[in-house]
Amino acid sequence: MSKVIHKWKSISLIEENVTLPTNVVVKHTTINHPGAAVILPITSSGKIILINQFRPSLKKWLLELPAGTMEIDETPLQCAQRELEEETGYSATSFQSLGQVTPLAGFCDEIQHLFVAKDLSLTTRFECDEDEVIEVIELSLEELHDKIRHDQITDTKTIACLSKAQLCGHL
Amino acid sequence: MSKVIHKWKSISLIEENVTLPTNVVVKHTTINHPGAAVILPITSSGKIILINQFRPSLKKWLLELPAGTMEIDETPLQCAQRELEEETGYSATSFQSLGQVTPLAGFCDEIQHLFVAKDLSLTTRFECDEDEVIEVIELSLEELHDKIRHDQITDTKTIACLSKAQLCGHL
Repeated sequence: MSKVIHKWKSISLIEENVTLPTNVVVKHTTINHPGAAVILPITSSGKIILINQFRPSLKKWLLELPAGTMEIDETPLQCAQRELEEETGYSATSFQSLGQVTPLAGFCDEIQHLFVAKDLSLTTRFECDEDEVIEVIELSLEELHDKIRHDQITDTKTIACLSKAQLCGHL
Repeated sequence: MSKVIHKWKSISLIEENVTLPTNVVVKHTTINHPGAAVILPITSSGKIILINQFRPSLKKWLLELPAGTMEIDETPLQCAQRELEEETGYSATSFQSLGQVTPLAGFCDEIQHLFVAKDLSLTTRFECDEDEVIEVIELSLEELHDKIRHDQITDTKTIACLSKAQLCGHL
């Protein structure tokens, strides 16, 4: 049993009965999300491209890796390629998967697919949605680490993606 | 202008008008959340205590740091102390703040307050909510890194908290 309470964009708030491993059935409220791609773009000189983005939910600017929601029939890689161009104006010829993360397991089923993007070149494409206000910024790994240490980068997908890239030898 | 669409537990789905830095006003849908505490418990031998938890939204078990939602009038530290005991059965005499992260800036205003907990001792307190199914697990940093590399740990607050603890010299 699953009931849609509210829908917006490609997201739904649903109420559903879930059977726990104990066989107890509980009513659970979930944000049903189509999934997203997160891109860690690394330039030929080893800098990382981020976006500074005004976030209406938090009413402030956040420094984040480019990312976005998967469209219908889009693969995670296609989404990563599209979002990288739309949000930063860069395209990349090399994309490598860094696996998946889950940002809010308590009440959201979103899966974020992580990619390292290399061999970048600037394109003319740079499209923001109406509620996106974006600046593109290039930082070194040391600058990024300093910003994470001092709460100037708080976005968990950005911190998790960087951490996975380091653990997997990309940085 | 802010309108509540739906409420569950201490969370609300709201629709609000937000003024962007460009002065454009947009209607935005936000999950309004009271905030949470995330705890990185480190034992005297340097192991890290995690919980393996069945997550109804994802219909699977996730290996995560202990964490939970702040109650009314609770500070982040009080929440961290309570959740550590309830979810792991351990209490700690030393808590150090690791700052804050934001797990899902696109449509959720949740702020997660991160803490390192040391000087641990087992208590008798161990209380799960009805929809929590939890096992307590102790791992070395190397084991954790291996699990992050291989998508066996996907929870972003866990990966981000570990990363901040390392950047701040706690691990």
